[in-house]
Amino acid sequence: MTTITGVQVFDVRFPTSLSQDGSDAMNKDGDYSAAYVVLDTDDPTLAGYGFTFTIGRGNDLAAEAARQRAQSLIGRDVAELVGDLGAAYRGLASDSQLRWLGPEKGVVHLAMAAVMNALWDLAARRAGKPLWQMLVEMTPEQLVDAADLRYLSDVLTREQAIALLAEMEPTRLERIAELKARGGYPCYTTSAGWLGYSDEKLRRLLQEAVDEGYRHVKLKVGADVEDDVRRLRIAREVIGWDAKLMIDANQVWDVPEAIEWIDRLAEFEPYWIEEPTSPDDVLGHAAIRKAVAPIGVATGEHGMNRVLFKQMFQAGAIDFCQLDAARLASVNEILSVYLMAKMFDVPVCPHAGGVGLCELVQHLSIFDYVAVSGTLEGRVTEFVDHLHEHFTDPCVVKGGSYTLPSRPGYSAQMHEESVAAYSYPNGSMWSADPSS
Amino acid sequence: MTTITGVQVFDVRFPTSLSQDGSDAMNKDGDYSAAYVVLDTDDPTLAGYGFTFTIGRGNDLAAEAARQRAQSLIGRDVAELVGDLGAAYRGLASDSQLRWLGPEKGVVHLAMAAVMNALWDLAARRAGKPLWQMLVEMTPEQLVDAADLRYLSDVLTREQAIALLAEMEPTRLERIAELKARGGYPCYTTSAGWLGYSDEKLRRLLQEAVDEGYRHVKLKVGADVEDDVRRLRIAREVIGWDAKLMIDANQVWDVPEAIEWIDRLAEFEPYWIEEPTSPDDVLGHAAIRKAVAPIGVATGEHGMNRVLFKQMFQAGAIDFCQLDAARLASVNEILSVYLMAKMFDVPVCPHAGGVGLCELVQHLSIFDYVAVSGTLEGRVTEFVDHLHEHFTDPCVVKGGSYTLPSRPGYSAQMHEESVAAYSYPNGSMWSADPSS
Repeated sequence: MTTITGVQVFDVRFPTSLSQDGSDAMNKDGDYSAAYVVLDTDDPTLAGYGFTFTIGRGNDLAAEAARQRAQSLIGRDVAELVGDLGAAYRGLASDSQLRWLGPEKGVVHLAMAAVMNALWDLAARRAGKPLWQMLVEMTPEQLVDAADLRYLSDVLTREQAIALLAEMEPTRLERIAELKARGGYPCYTTSAGWLGYSDEKLRRLLQEAVDEGYRHVKLKVGADVEDDVRRLRIAREVIGWDAKLMIDANQVWDVPEAIEWIDRLAEFEPYWIEEPTSPDDVLGHAAIRKAVAPIGVATGEHGMNRVLFKQMFQAGAIDFCQLDAARLASVNEILSVYLMAKMFDVPVCPHAGGVGLCELVQHLSIFDYVAVSGTLEGRVTEFVDHLHEHFTDPCVVKGGSYTLPSRPGYSAQMHEESVAAYSYPNGSMWSADPSS
Repeated sequence: MTTITGVQVFDVRFPTSLSQDGSDAMNKDGDYSAAYVVLDTDDPTLAGYGFTFTIGRGNDLAAEAARQRAQSLIGRDVAELVGDLGAAYRGLASDSQLRWLGPEKGVVHLAMAAVMNALWDLAARRAGKPLWQMLVEMTPEQLVDAADLRYLSDVLTREQAIALLAEMEPTRLERIAELKARGGYPCYTTSAGWLGYSDEKLRRLLQEAVDEGYRHVKLKVGADVEDDVRRLRIAREVIGWDAKLMIDANQVWDVPEAIEWIDRLAEFEPYWIEEPTSPDDVLGHAAIRKAVAPIGVATGEHGMNRVLFKQMFQAGAIDFCQLDAARLASVNEILSVYLMAKMFDVPVCPHAGGVGLCELVQHLSIFDYVAVSGTLEGRVTEFVDHLHEHFTDPCVVKGGSYTLPSRPGYSAQMHEESVAAYSYPNGSMWSADPSS
């Protein structure tokens, strides 16, 4: 019997604020960070790696919450845990004292994501398969057993969830072959459009994106409307009018302001406006969507839990669902969002970037195509070319597509040297003063 | 010039799980806790006291988040801070790295509540007035300057907010006199109805509540429907059919299950059903409300922020707004919720109980009556008779009313001996093993 022998938690921070990587109208100085969890076992060849993503201060809170969340796993039988990941999830979620601090949102929920991501990684490593493959080999009943359907039965019952998955089951292998043939799952790049970049850098990075084969690019907006007009004009000059141009306001507007501002930018024909207002504002997004059509409305990277997404779908509030693999409580909750998205016919285009989010979402998008949605129509997954060098199995993007991961796990393991160097505040990159 | 010289933060926990005080269908073993903040100044007679409320594990996370939140206050001029509490709030809220962990929800938002509660307490102490009085002596413009109206302008503009307050301003003094004449602000008791109590204890406590003058009592439901039927039958036997009987499910149901269960209990004519489902589910509450009328729907103790309440009002989802004084980000955010409630004509009946929540909400309810709503119709504030002995200025409830606090501050200060004894894990009440 293999058991979990311990939990290691690391507060890993990268000083990205120095280069303005990741800068937008709301988040001007993020230090991309991971609350990183390692579940050790008494099998020296087997461990689980997971994390949640933050942007600096408070990453210690997420790490400590993850440590507390994971304590009850110590001493547990690995086979039993990974044999019923729904039960493992419900066990962790049943801590009513920690639940009070959310419920199911904020630091304690980010911590659930980190711990369950490590457990799903452990399960896939033990199975010797990349996570996406492990998922697409599970039966509809097994997948639904793992999903968190609590509070969703007014839109999605267990029976409906199984039926949705069963419908796509006979043709799963065809879609795996199709994805391999087309070079992977389509993605878009945000690397060009951070708000802190100069016009020259913007133009150069956009040209590079076009040259690399991207048909979608995204720019940050929302700090100054005249700047936005100028930057979007540059973007259209470089990418032309056939490529898709997305814009992202990172929650800076009230609802009426959003409608007015987007109207001003409509001449550049944005494909979507992302995070136009508070991520909690279901009815606000619905109002904005109605007002700015045919520009699509996208949100989800701060979508706190499945109950929020349920309402986004019910209210017809979004054209694109941008779930986050480290904010939702891992595959258990993400499965439910994918199933609801399928039911409401909303494409899921996961948020990525940050630290390691690209590594995670590639598995989710492939699973979605193969086992849930069965289509690439309107689907494109975010890709940001930052910090992949710190992962042992970094995502590989070629010609605007994520190639299919082949190594066991959820691609969530970081190099030990990276964890050591960037651990805050005592890693060598911090104690040596990264600004000097 | 008086400046803030330091921040002390305490993880204070009371072992309430031992007596099943506070037990309900979701929270079976809470240890009522406070992440308690003291803002010290260089004036030895002046400090500010505040807290947020949790139910045990993770209270350390809230305390540490409060410590981090409050760091930027050290060295600041007290007069400047309390002279513009809106600016102080926006300054703390502008930390985009901490914001990422919510935004505006969960641990980092609870921490905002704790710190800003201490700052409002400090302001009222410095003014030599109880908080409610300080608030009712502020002009409409001053109150709105303090309020957090971000993301609300689709339902409430600054101008509308000022107009709402201005309308009630000329008659404020009359209502203060009326409240004093009637013995204070009306409240109801939850002390009788915890789920872990025996039928005999339930019957005895209900009789005591009636004898003490309460016209409203509340029972926990949702664990077992047959138990609920039996307990509600006992309640009606004791309190009769003229008194109001509220029931509280603490989020245990999905939407269809809520409707079915409440239908089963309708014969006992509940005045409201509280927390029938996920606190995040605006559209779910709206559906339940429609189905169970004329039974009212109440929620809010887990209402994470003003954007959630905005939508609850917009969707016609609730009959009673139960905002929480330690979950919303103090008076700054609470003001906005009161103003929206006024605009949508929804009575606010604040959540209380826990640790010190009664001490806080009495100020808010009095302020609401005097300066915002101007009516007691449908208003009744929660009261639970637990743990008041640990506060230096405990609330005084007589004949089913909160009497008006008269001492300076927000009634948020705890006895130093209590803080020391119940500090976790090293206070004498914990290190001595409270279960023995």
